[in-house]
Amino acid sequence: MFYLAPPIENQWKMPDASVEVLRGTLDLLILKAVSWGPMHGYGVARWIEHATSDVLQIEEGSLYPALHRLEARGWIDAEWGTSTNNRRAKFYVLTTKGRSQLRVETATWSRFAHAVFAALEAPPSQPA
Amino acid sequence: MFYLAPPIENQWKMPDASVEVLRGTLDLLILKAVSWGPMHGYGVARWIEHATSDVLQIEEGSLYPALHRLEARGWIDAEWGTSTNNRRAKFYVLTTKGRSQLRVETATWSRFAHAVFAALEAPPSQPA
Repeated sequence: MFYLAPPIENQWKMPDASVEVLRGTLDLLILKAVSWGPMHGYGVARWIEHATSDVLQIEEGSLYPALHRLEARGWIDAEWGTSTNNRRAKFYVLTTKGRSQLRVETATWSRFAHAVFAALEAPPSQPA
Repeated sequence: MFYLAPPIENQWKMPDASVEVLRGTLDLLILKAVSWGPMHGYGVARWIEHATSDVLQIEEGSLYPALHRLEARGWIDAEWGTSTNNRRAKFYVLTTKGRSQLRVETATWSRFAHAVFAALEAPPSQPA
């Protein structure tokens, strides 16, 4: 699962709807994580946590299926290499197709998020 | 389905991941739509489209199941009334529980979206 870590000052119960929202964004963040160089699965998860100041956290049970899905779509390639602690590890790299997908999904996400923010800040009455 | 209308200047193909992202946000936007007064289903859909400048559009096949789900959870109540064209219509109102849920989900959404934006703008290399 890919979930929002509860803020320390306010341990609210996770609303179900948000869990669904989060799932769809995982692919985009993985593409972003591998966008500047090869990264192994563990590194991808740590990068996302770091880049979101630990607001988003990924469990392995979500991460690896997502990596395989992106590989099957031709957006990332997997290659074997040696990790910093000298173990063989699979490294993921962004393909050309993946880079174009990253660009499209980033624009789509931004457009979507700005639209939701606009609605949340709009007067809630019915339009004239 | 709840989907992003393609921008006129760039009719890109809808990425699958974004469709999933959108689904989870529908409940939040419905709660927002009914937050200041009774609204019928058609009005909810039009309000969301209007408040997002037509970026988000909802099909009936998504809207009514979502309204029933929110009613079953006790976040909205349905009551019969007369629409402006003098037909009997079901009107939805936010319950006290729903208002508190709207507050929680708005905060969660905002926290999530800001975290994703931060990651999309972060340097894509692995943290030190």
